[in-house]
Amino acid sequence: MDRTWAIPGLDLHLELGAGGRAAALEHGLRSAITEGRLAAGTRLPASRTLAADLGIARNSIADVYAQLTAEGWLEARVGAGTWVSRRAAEPTTQATDAATAPRPGLDLRGGIPDASSFPRRAWAAAARYAVLNAPAAGLGYAPDRGTVALRASLAEYLGRVRGVAATADRTIVTRGFGELLSLTCRALASEGARRIAVEEVGHEAHREIVRAAGLAPVPVRVDTGGAVIEELGDVDAVLLTAAHQFPVGVPLSPSRRRAVVEWAERTGGLVIEDDYDGEFRYDRRAVGALQALAPRHVLYAGTASKSLAPAVGLAWAVVPERLLAPISAQRRLTGATSDVLNQRTLERFIAAHDYDRNVRRLRAEYRARRLALEARVADDLPGCRITGLAAGLHCLLELPPATSEMQVTEAAERLGLRFDGLASFRLAGSEWRHPPAMVVGYGAPPSHRFDEAIDVAIRAIRSVDTG
Amino acid sequence: MDRTWAIPGLDLHLELGAGGRAAALEHGLRSAITEGRLAAGTRLPASRTLAADLGIARNSIADVYAQLTAEGWLEARVGAGTWVSRRAAEPTTQATDAATAPRPGLDLRGGIPDASSFPRRAWAAAARYAVLNAPAAGLGYAPDRGTVALRASLAEYLGRVRGVAATADRTIVTRGFGELLSLTCRALASEGARRIAVEEVGHEAHREIVRAAGLAPVPVRVDTGGAVIEELGDVDAVLLTAAHQFPVGVPLSPSRRRAVVEWAERTGGLVIEDDYDGEFRYDRRAVGALQALAPRHVLYAGTASKSLAPAVGLAWAVVPERLLAPISAQRRLTGATSDVLNQRTLERFIAAHDYDRNVRRLRAEYRARRLALEARVADDLPGCRITGLAAGLHCLLELPPATSEMQVTEAAERLGLRFDGLASFRLAGSEWRHPPAMVVGYGAPPSHRFDEAIDVAIRAIRSVDTG
Repeated sequence: MDRTWAIPGLDLHLELGAGGRAAALEHGLRSAITEGRLAAGTRLPASRTLAADLGIARNSIADVYAQLTAEGWLEARVGAGTWVSRRAAEPTTQATDAATAPRPGLDLRGGIPDASSFPRRAWAAAARYAVLNAPAAGLGYAPDRGTVALRASLAEYLGRVRGVAATADRTIVTRGFGELLSLTCRALASEGARRIAVEEVGHEAHREIVRAAGLAPVPVRVDTGGAVIEELGDVDAVLLTAAHQFPVGVPLSPSRRRAVVEWAERTGGLVIEDDYDGEFRYDRRAVGALQALAPRHVLYAGTASKSLAPAVGLAWAVVPERLLAPISAQRRLTGATSDVLNQRTLERFIAAHDYDRNVRRLRAEYRARRLALEARVADDLPGCRITGLAAGLHCLLELPPATSEMQVTEAAERLGLRFDGLASFRLAGSEWRHPPAMVVGYGAPPSHRFDEAIDVAIRAIRSVDTG
Repeated sequence: MDRTWAIPGLDLHLELGAGGRAAALEHGLRSAITEGRLAAGTRLPASRTLAADLGIARNSIADVYAQLTAEGWLEARVGAGTWVSRRAAEPTTQATDAATAPRPGLDLRGGIPDASSFPRRAWAAAARYAVLNAPAAGLGYAPDRGTVALRASLAEYLGRVRGVAATADRTIVTRGFGELLSLTCRALASEGARRIAVEEVGHEAHREIVRAAGLAPVPVRVDTGGAVIEELGDVDAVLLTAAHQFPVGVPLSPSRRRAVVEWAERTGGLVIEDDYDGEFRYDRRAVGALQALAPRHVLYAGTASKSLAPAVGLAWAVVPERLLAPISAQRRLTGATSDVLNQRTLERFIAAHDYDRNVRRLRAEYRARRLALEARVADDLPGCRITGLAAGLHCLLELPPATSEMQVTEAAERLGLRFDGLASFRLAGSEWRHPPAMVVGYGAPPSHRFDEAIDVAIRAIRSVDTG
């Protein structure tokens, strides 16, 4: 005979003792709370519901609740039912996002878009459309390259805006550039690749992903014409920010664009084109994607993290045919399935012209910030200058020759501003030589704090002995 | 002097020739379409807009459009503007989801929930709430364990419904169980683990993920008491479907629950508890999570793929303290960042009691299907019987002793039904002995096709020589 019974909706396991069901309920609830199995804030079923479910008189349930409320285990709130008392149980929420969330204060780090400008209403409308209109078959496990409709829509968009030679068949969707880079490098490693050239300044997070995938990152020098392709060593692939080097801010020169394509065609090596901010150029038409020059040798990668927000969690790539199957295989092997509802939302967002609209709006906003920054530096920081393309979300602010980037970063931090020096992006082991400079991520602050962030940056620089 | 100019909104690169801007526009558009840089269906800017942007008379633009329309490159639709003609360009969408999407037809595969029951309106409302109410700082890159609020909310839920000893600090969110398993196995491997016991019948996809992470899967026998813990060899971890073995459908026996915890405490090994359908039990209270017996040795894993839909793309785990940092490290190294908006949507969905409501509704639905299936088998398939707990989304349908599972699968396929035999889940190399049986995933069909799917399954079985 089963000597236990359950409380619906709570899944409490109660032993039936001599005192009957009401006593067992009281005892069971009390020990569940003291042992932490019922967390503070948990709402108990209404006494009427529980009475019906358990076959106990409603008054008996009410008595149990009243007793435990009297003891301090429960709290009754008029019209809101009965809850496990906050002070009764162990605290369950001591976690904070402090380690990874932006600190309160100001931020001029590179590569961060202004999330306060995210088009919330348009995105919410697209999400609603996506979930209400998805066919039932489309709510299951995702096709491993992403939904067909989104891939077709991205192929059209990338062809139109970035000149990418894209077809839906060769377009894949991932949940961020990091995942895409990881899958691509693992696919290369699975086919025997061992070394990948990376620009000697860039994101350390990307280099970590490359190493974890089994490839050795080999630095390639960066000068005012971008990565020095002539010096590419014996590598199987190269990772380039061709349109707008991060963090130096220059484009790959026309002769080097040709050179890297020739290198790829000659050696069979892969070019990974990280086009993270290709939609944002302010002075003239953006240089088209390198990928269009050699679609069989260049993997083009883009992301919603800059053009929308990192919280969207989507990136995309147009992939040479031969890498499609190896990347899909790595996807299965790492459990990196795609989230269909999110993809359907982006698809609708693009179809409703909201993506184009948002890029246009952001382009105007960032362009204005860039011009304001240039004017402020010209006025207030003699001896400093802004370099890098009028593009994207960041530029360099070159400091007078003997200035310490680290001292500027530290001075800024004391003033509540996150502000990185150029050398902090250097790959250890590279022979990096560049005049001291700060990376100014003018996309990062919300509009209403942009002037303040620039003020603080200028104060920080002025506070440091500039030789 | 710059000899090129751009078309806003299209990013076409036109060479200025002798014939003037209108001629260059006509030529540029034509070649962009023939070369596929402008995809079929691309909408061109209104002639008025383009005229203003380019400083060309509007009539000239209209003439260019008319000429290209006449040539068949463009299509004009009254009131809807001018588009690149469908028949002009290469087809860009030849991809299909056929390889991975459910085939049209009927499906009784195990582990698939009825996506037609997805609570679309409630999810859309939660998505809307999430995106409209997220703080701007919450739209950036995600905290690597997931948002604090969702983790707290899941900790509370898992404690209440599954008896998990959970705190927000030790709860993490991933984008699916596959990713979670990959990260966990990679974390174990990074700390020196080499071998993991897996139930001798289960998902091959999980074993592939285990292997790719650098661990050797070692089969552990499964009998009517679940995995035979007494026979666990020299392994560093064990992956168990303790509440409801997949696909056999039995729970791990009480003595083996104790035994595996003792094993973990004695050896320091990790138990990964894959609680994929723990919310669904129909006859009595579900057995609580194994994890509560030894929170320092058991990693509890749950997923939204069964309780909501795979398209949601979220799973969660409550993790022993010592594995939190290694799992976070693997997450960075594989670029497996989390998508904040999706997490905020689930958080809101839970807070609005829609998650509980959906589980209750599904439980009633699946319970009714299970009972109907049992009745049909008793009536129509003498010599067969249903085994496995009255729980979850699947059970076994045992066939008469000499029946071929493969023949039933093939017969079903000819009738348009996907229907797997038990042996198809066997890990190669295990000494699996079990009477022939089909795995019936009664969750898979939409409600309106459930009876039809069962009819077809019965016809398929009857059509095979049952010894």
